[in-house]
Amino acid sequence: MLDRMQAMEKIFSPRSVAFLGASNNRAKWGGIIFRNLRKGGFQGAIYPVNPGEKEVQGFKAYPKVSDIPGEVDLAVFTIPARLVPEAISDCVRKGVPAGVVISAGFAELGDEGRALQDEMVRRAKAGGMVLVGPNGQGIAVPKLGFFPWMPVLRPEPGAIGIVSQSGNVSTVFCEQLAEYGFGCSKIVSAGNCADVGWADYLEYLGRDPDTGVILLYVEGMDDGRSFFEAARCASRAKPVVVLKSGRTAAGTRAAASHTGVLAGSDHVFSSCCRQAGIVRAETVEEAVLLAATFVSSPLPGGRRVGIVTGGGGYGVITADAAARAGLDLVKLSDETIERLRKFLPPWWSPNNPVDMAAGLGAYGGPMDLLPILLESGEVDGAIFLSAGWVYPMVDPLKADKDFHDSDRPEIRALVDQDVDFCRRLAEYARGSDKPLLLHSNVARLAIRRRYPGLLEIIKRGLLLYPDIESVTRGFSALAERKEFLSRADR
Amino acid sequence: MLDRMQAMEKIFSPRSVAFLGASNNRAKWGGIIFRNLRKGGFQGAIYPVNPGEKEVQGFKAYPKVSDIPGEVDLAVFTIPARLVPEAISDCVRKGVPAGVVISAGFAELGDEGRALQDEMVRRAKAGGMVLVGPNGQGIAVPKLGFFPWMPVLRPEPGAIGIVSQSGNVSTVFCEQLAEYGFGCSKIVSAGNCADVGWADYLEYLGRDPDTGVILLYVEGMDDGRSFFEAARCASRAKPVVVLKSGRTAAGTRAAASHTGVLAGSDHVFSSCCRQAGIVRAETVEEAVLLAATFVSSPLPGGRRVGIVTGGGGYGVITADAAARAGLDLVKLSDETIERLRKFLPPWWSPNNPVDMAAGLGAYGGPMDLLPILLESGEVDGAIFLSAGWVYPMVDPLKADKDFHDSDRPEIRALVDQDVDFCRRLAEYARGSDKPLLLHSNVARLAIRRRYPGLLEIIKRGLLLYPDIESVTRGFSALAERKEFLSRADR
Repeated sequence: MLDRMQAMEKIFSPRSVAFLGASNNRAKWGGIIFRNLRKGGFQGAIYPVNPGEKEVQGFKAYPKVSDIPGEVDLAVFTIPARLVPEAISDCVRKGVPAGVVISAGFAELGDEGRALQDEMVRRAKAGGMVLVGPNGQGIAVPKLGFFPWMPVLRPEPGAIGIVSQSGNVSTVFCEQLAEYGFGCSKIVSAGNCADVGWADYLEYLGRDPDTGVILLYVEGMDDGRSFFEAARCASRAKPVVVLKSGRTAAGTRAAASHTGVLAGSDHVFSSCCRQAGIVRAETVEEAVLLAATFVSSPLPGGRRVGIVTGGGGYGVITADAAARAGLDLVKLSDETIERLRKFLPPWWSPNNPVDMAAGLGAYGGPMDLLPILLESGEVDGAIFLSAGWVYPMVDPLKADKDFHDSDRPEIRALVDQDVDFCRRLAEYARGSDKPLLLHSNVARLAIRRRYPGLLEIIKRGLLLYPDIESVTRGFSALAERKEFLSRADR
Repeated sequence: MLDRMQAMEKIFSPRSVAFLGASNNRAKWGGIIFRNLRKGGFQGAIYPVNPGEKEVQGFKAYPKVSDIPGEVDLAVFTIPARLVPEAISDCVRKGVPAGVVISAGFAELGDEGRALQDEMVRRAKAGGMVLVGPNGQGIAVPKLGFFPWMPVLRPEPGAIGIVSQSGNVSTVFCEQLAEYGFGCSKIVSAGNCADVGWADYLEYLGRDPDTGVILLYVEGMDDGRSFFEAARCASRAKPVVVLKSGRTAAGTRAAASHTGVLAGSDHVFSSCCRQAGIVRAETVEEAVLLAATFVSSPLPGGRRVGIVTGGGGYGVITADAAARAGLDLVKLSDETIERLRKFLPPWWSPNNPVDMAAGLGAYGGPMDLLPILLESGEVDGAIFLSAGWVYPMVDPLKADKDFHDSDRPEIRALVDQDVDFCRRLAEYARGSDKPLLLHSNVARLAIRRRYPGLLEIIKRGLLLYPDIESVTRGFSALAERKEFLSRADR
């Protein structure tokens, strides 16, 4: 019998999969998910299991798992809940080490469902089988083209490992990560966590070489101690970002009816997070951007930050946001001010944020200013605001019917200039051992509209932050992790 | 001589405009802004003023304003700061009642600049001329196609009036409003507010019939009392939403170097806002969504809310966010639960949020559930999560090269179903006297990608909220305004 981590490995890199409830009806979960599995490019063997069909979506079907001729590493369940325990027993007879139970109708429905769930787990445990779920939407391993899950999307391979107690939230995580150019290593909709639980996921992903950052959506847990022990261990190796709901009385009631878990005290959860080195996100959007932050930036030595902006108002708002995020917007020395002044228009007001004061034609500015800041020894990292500002100007010009053809070379020149600038910016940021975080008003559009300058930045694995609060929070999260690792080292 | 509000009217609906510093050089502010003015569709007379040119961008140029043969309602200045006072005197000689000073180099640069600014204002006041600016990026009146401003974009006409102490922030306001389908009545980059100040803008926009909501970005002010008196007066007539920076010591320093203002105590500002009925936003994004909220929704009688969601995790997160926003996620009566149950799958867990529990084929559900909630008398309004969920599913299917042609009618059917659903939802929301706020994960993409279902909602003037925090905050802001008006009535 495999040990628990070996069995977990069968979930995420099986050579063969049995699909219980695979259907030719594309309106059923078993039809949709089987199609997604089939279409993703998975190279292993796929066996639909359905006693009522000879063939499912072009694959030979089997009445039950024990009828399958070859070895089966993983079973996926979309059959009705009441049929699951018996099917588990059949898997055990066949020697299947792992299962993903997508079927709903268990503990989230109350006592009767909980009894069914307990029976399912009892049979699996007795047979040495590990189970994801129930009541999730499945899992995905993009690197293997392995998508036995409900959503139609197929995230790119990447460094972020996701475990979520909500299928919808894990899908939104993937969609939003893709907007910024980040892919995923493993994605799990963990559902009720009846068997494989938080500690297992943390242990597995903590050791997984393909996973650089662990991102969790948590509604609650039965065993907080094991969660935090596993998290503390994992977070020494790699960042763990958690979005936790069920924080209020109303949220706790909702969690109980969603995944049947106890949400626990939010205050206790927060202080345990700090001790375990978990970075806690407040919103779905923040969770995504923090995970991408850790993939894309080195850690700063401290909280001193220098800011460069082309828009004065944005500088003021960022100064506020930096202060609220606990960053130190240091006063720059006279010497540094003098070095900066050489690259700024005569009407520049010396300050940090360094407001470039819309000096047209001084476009090379930020690439002169940022090295002065970062190499001054006066900051632990820098933030640059409004990368790709040229696109909101170029977009409407291009769309303008009256725009004269003789003006078009001017547009091309603007874009060429921006591409060159972004290339140098990305090279510099990638070569720096200090964080240089980049904000862009059009971050969310960069990939979709193929803005060539911003793509230069994205293809180097850098994150473009879409708003001021996320870029300052990103910097503070990096500092938070640095502080945790320093404490842990002592 | 015109009174101050009559002169303000000349700023926003002039019959003729003199443009000082209009240039044939498209890399200069005077070249870019003159082009934008010329291109917007403004029907009044346009007179470029430039002593060095006979013609600017195809228009006859004049050496100075007093050489212009016709009457001039408004003068726009992009000439160097030191030349502005003399040019103002020339405008006064010509009887010009209003000016927009875009030129920078005044109080934001310290004492010398402040003296220049004072001299400019002295001459204008003596001549009965009102001045916007200096140190802004201009103004816009979309209804008139009037765009004497720096950005290339041209927002649609709409109900939101914007005054901003940062050109960049006003541009980003307009860009983000457009993402959700909202246009603007008047947009002002107010710069240093040397003459026309917050009280004037509030008085003017408070009376302006084209403006339904006033949205301000404020760094600071010299005269807090007159700001709050004007705001209290305006906010009885229409909602006033304020984003205020310079909230921290770091932000205050940055504001001083940006627009030369004193930011003041943030705590005092907040409590004055509450008294004046000002709705305060924390971020650029929140400011935009709150302004659009007031354009698109009636006010609720109170804070009791019912939530309907297709994703359980989203329901839990929303329950938390609602509680944090001070909303009352009421427990529904047994009678209402029984009425809801008829439209939900058998595995539904009764609760508020009403989690539709991914019952495929029960797609008509929300349009059955929402009226039950809203007409129960148990809630003051409702929130529906994940409108247009079909598009993230349809998008990748359409992009899938292997997708079989025989599957395409299924996609069309899904979209048709969604269009019909969204049409009924929008009709119902528009006809309801209670707020029904709609969230969509793909809100930001709806217009750009022309998602037909979501466009049905947008074209009725409804806001699609892009995230959970904004939809719950939107509801609480509506309740906040209702509470203010109730107090003000007493």
